[in-house]
Amino acid sequence: MTDAMLGIVQGGVDTIDLGRQLRVGMPQSPNHPQFWHTLPRRHGDMVRPDGSSAANDMITTGTHVGTHIDALAHVSFDGKLHGGVDAAEACVAGKYEQHGVHTIEPMLRRGVLLDVAGHLGVEHCEGGYEITVTDLEATAERQGVSVGEGDVVLIRSGWGVRFAEGAPYVGGPSGVPGVSEPGAAWLAERGVHAVGADTIAFERLAPGGGHALLPAHRVLLVEHGIYIIEALDLEGLAAVGWSEFTFVLVPLNIFGATGSPVRPLAVRARSGEEAAS
Amino acid sequence: MTDAMLGIVQGGVDTIDLGRQLRVGMPQSPNHPQFWHTLPRRHGDMVRPDGSSAANDMITTGTHVGTHIDALAHVSFDGKLHGGVDAAEACVAGKYEQHGVHTIEPMLRRGVLLDVAGHLGVEHCEGGYEITVTDLEATAERQGVSVGEGDVVLIRSGWGVRFAEGAPYVGGPSGVPGVSEPGAAWLAERGVHAVGADTIAFERLAPGGGHALLPAHRVLLVEHGIYIIEALDLEGLAAVGWSEFTFVLVPLNIFGATGSPVRPLAVRARSGEEAAS
Amino acid sequence: MTDAMLGIVQGGVDTIDLGRQLRVGMPQSPNHPQFWHTLPRRHGDMVRPDGSSAANDMITTGTHVGTHIDALAHVSFDGKLHGGVDAAEACVAGKYEQHGVHTIEPMLRRGVLLDVAGHLGVEHCEGGYEITVTDLEATAERQGVSVGEGDVVLIRSGWGVRFAEGAPYVGGPSGVPGVSEPGAAWLAERGVHAVGADTIAFERLAPGGGHALLPAHRVLLVEHGIYIIEALDLEGLAAVGWSEFTFVLVPLNIFGATGSPVRPLAVRARSGEEAAS
Amino acid sequence: MTDAMLGIVQGGVDTIDLGRQLRVGMPQSPNHPQFWHTLPRRHGDMVRPDGSSAANDMITTGTHVGTHIDALAHVSFDGKLHGGVDAAEACVAGKYEQHGVHTIEPMLRRGVLLDVAGHLGVEHCEGGYEITVTDLEATAERQGVSVGEGDVVLIRSGWGVRFAEGAPYVGGPSGVPGVSEPGAAWLAERGVHAVGADTIAFERLAPGGGHALLPAHRVLLVEHGIYIIEALDLEGLAAVGWSEFTFVLVPLNIFGATGSPVRPLAVRARSGEEAAS
Repeated sequence: MTDAMLGIVQGGVDTIDLGRQLRVGMPQSPNHPQFWHTLPRRHGDMVRPDGSSAANDMITTGTHVGTHIDALAHVSFDGKLHGGVDAAEACVAGKYEQHGVHTIEPMLRRGVLLDVAGHLGVEHCEGGYEITVTDLEATAERQGVSVGEGDVVLIRSGWGVRFAEGAPYVGGPSGVPGVSEPGAAWLAERGVHAVGADTIAFERLAPGGGHALLPAHRVLLVEHGIYIIEALDLEGLAAVGWSEFTFVLVPLNIFGATGSPVRPLAVRARSGEEAAS
Repeated sequence: MTDAMLGIVQGGVDTIDLGRQLRVGMPQSPNHPQFWHTLPRRHGDMVRPDGSSAANDMITTGTHVGTHIDALAHVSFDGKLHGGVDAAEACVAGKYEQHGVHTIEPMLRRGVLLDVAGHLGVEHCEGGYEITVTDLEATAERQGVSVGEGDVVLIRSGWGVRFAEGAPYVGGPSGVPGVSEPGAAWLAERGVHAVGADTIAFERLAPGGGHALLPAHRVLLVEHGIYIIEALDLEGLAAVGWSEFTFVLVPLNIFGATGSPVRPLAVRARSGEEAAS
Repeated sequence: MTDAMLGIVQGGVDTIDLGRQLRVGMPQSPNHPQFWHTLPRRHGDMVRPDGSSAANDMITTGTHVGTHIDALAHVSFDGKLHGGVDAAEACVAGKYEQHGVHTIEPMLRRGVLLDVAGHLGVEHCEGGYEITVTDLEATAERQGVSVGEGDVVLIRSGWGVRFAEGAPYVGGPSGVPGVSEPGAAWLAERGVHAVGADTIAFERLAPGGGHALLPAHRVLLVEHGIYIIEALDLEGLAAVGWSEFTFVLVPLNIFGATGSPVRPLAVRARSGEEAAS
Repeated sequence: MTDAMLGIVQGGVDTIDLGRQLRVGMPQSPNHPQFWHTLPRRHGDMVRPDGSSAANDMITTGTHVGTHIDALAHVSFDGKLHGGVDAAEACVAGKYEQHGVHTIEPMLRRGVLLDVAGHLGVEHCEGGYEITVTDLEATAERQGVSVGEGDVVLIRSGWGVRFAEGAPYVGGPSGVPGVSEPGAAWLAERGVHAVGADTIAFERLAPGGGHALLPAHRVLLVEHGIYIIEALDLEGLAAVGWSEFTFVLVPLNIFGATGSPVRPLAVRARSGEEAAS
């Protein structure tokens, strides 16, 4: 009676966590309110007559911190969001009713890793390195994987190894590697649903250039309605060498927000069991 | 080459969202910092030279607000967390290093709905109603479902229909329906991994009694290490009548916190295709 | 060599604190983010090699909570702030550059208490009671005090005694006493610099009416540029019977905000020494 | 009938603002939650039927940001706060009931400026420079001012001119000038009530040393119960050359907190009128 999916799950699945742990002091863009976590109540602060006590938390944070997803409401171009929606009118009473993060459906989709750093044979691409269409195509070919409609494509530059260093991860003087407008266009042509990378802004940042110009954001979010996932941890995924997998991502359903912290997963049936054809 | 799980996903899955939308003003326990969302930047506030602009968010919140999961660090009894861990020592530099929410593994597990309100033939159980072991067993029998080791069991009292009313959902004078110590013990005996309900505190709250006594929390979190999921939206799940399904829950990986807002899913292969036996 | 003011101060002054203590759970308007205070670090969390440790705080709050002052940017009418400033244009990059709280000069001014509850011989005016011009004039006459240009006038309805009760202080079903449009006009005609009261919204709130209509705010903030101070504690001031005094108020200098929590003082030379004429 | 203080105030006073403007992005210690201000509601978001609308704010912040005062609960030494108070026991239910910032009385006191940079003839002391007892005494002598019991002493290193530069103000590689243990002891011997400086930590920070050792904090807060005021703007005060004045400081009355943002004032009777002897 068990449905097919539950059958797979009960047979055992392997799961790789693609999200960064949220910690006070982790690197993040200074454009966004800083992640902070504290304990208003600790055990012992208030003990109930029956000997029990509860501890709790307070969080303040931007939504574009840690591993996170950009909603279509995040970026506008010439006053328009995706689909020609007027960016001013999309905001009603301080909430992006149109294209807010609450409009992103939970994802259980085909995920594809393009391990560009692996293909190039480097620990990580250099700051400011532009991942070209040639790089993307050669990487896919080397891995024997194709990018298809509705997929979620994750691009590994290797820059994620610098997350633990703090400020250098954000780029600043060094810049950050990533695709730029041509790579974004290549992804958009393939009809992908979402894209992600192991960097803070998904796309290439020029050395010293900061976030002043984000052409890939324009192409993806505004022109094509493709979600962007940033600050992924792709090291574990590269280590096991999965080129395709089930990608699971469930954004918080925050009404009217422009993004959400997320903790995406890559999942496979444990046995390496293949689908019945 | 596609693994079995991806095969199912690409064949199409049905997904039911079990999480509440996070909105300013939604009902929550006054013990926890209030959820608030605002837009520090809106489109047009700062337009870049290329015509693009970005909007962003600020969130402040407790972690036990909206649909959320309790980590084992949330409740102690006589100064001990689950497994006899000293509750004071578990907190290092203001973080629950032991039993914090970062220690909860993402869940892809068998989920079971016990629709007690459906079984009793009521829109919702009354405030303060205790869901008994008899209720649980009769509900399972009527649905033809069993509760097994490692499952996530969701108990529907129907009280979730009151979420939209605001303050009454939290209980106060009326109390809130739910299991109490015996129902919690029954669940624990079956070796479940996590439990959930469509109420703010999972367990029965006596009329006017507030959160002063939470015996089911003690049984589940402290004595048996079973996670508790609260403020679920179980109306959609009851409407489709799924008794078992794949339950997907990915808590935010907040280092040292006692809980996390979550957006759990119930998932089935679309075709109603059954697992190969 | 000592200047005259320092001479007075060194001779001794009496100070009455007119501000409410900021505490988690205190009554406040639900329109504003809730005040919350927690300790991210407590002593012992991180002890330095020399044996020292530091504790610190995290605050989240609206600015119109506790005793607070309204900047002119707080209220608009027909799209205009005070002086005909366009309310949309006054906000630049998410800050009220014009009429923000950073434009309020610190106040050392003549303060006048009008103890209306004392004049009427009641512990407090009833919820929804409108303090009339006749009440204001009779109170001033009874106290032998006049209201002059540049003064800060504090109106005591006695409602402040209910602050400790929590929700009833905010009004809701009962309404809240205070002046309405005629009282506000009377104050404005006298050229006062700021006004205050021991209630949450300064002006009369009709029973069950909430904050839907605030005509005194329009008269004072928008039409006359007169600041409003709310949720004052006037009990100590009434107890000593000071009708005039030096009023000291220093708002936080928050760039672009619409208000600030404040802790105003009433001060007099201790000896009751009078100014040289 | 006017009391003497009001007489002075009505005769006109000159006021110098010693507080920094609170702005998103200003330099602050990374040990404390970042100051952030946003507008949840702007004019136009919700217009009432009568044509009025209200804008409001959300603030998240540490208390040791911007110009601020340290309460005695801020620092402990060998587990003790000032007066031998046990640092663990002083914290009840997550609030420093003893020595919290709510225990600091509003200050109207004699203020003394010691313009060390002026005395040394430098724009600002170098990073890491220790202001010695000799410097303090020579500065006082040059200015012809003495330090007395109950005074508030403000030490100008000139480092405040770097506030606008951002990160360099905090010190890091350069260190920050200030007194160290001997200067603190000299101040304490004179029985001062509070001390302040134009730097982020009041005392000297060694180049590259961060906040690891704060001996002046121990001497002042723990051993002598003397409050510390940090990140003052002393440039205006030095420009007018006031050596003594009335110092006005009113901390927010935050129950149980370890500090508060403040906006202190230096005040003098305008006429330069001297006190009657």
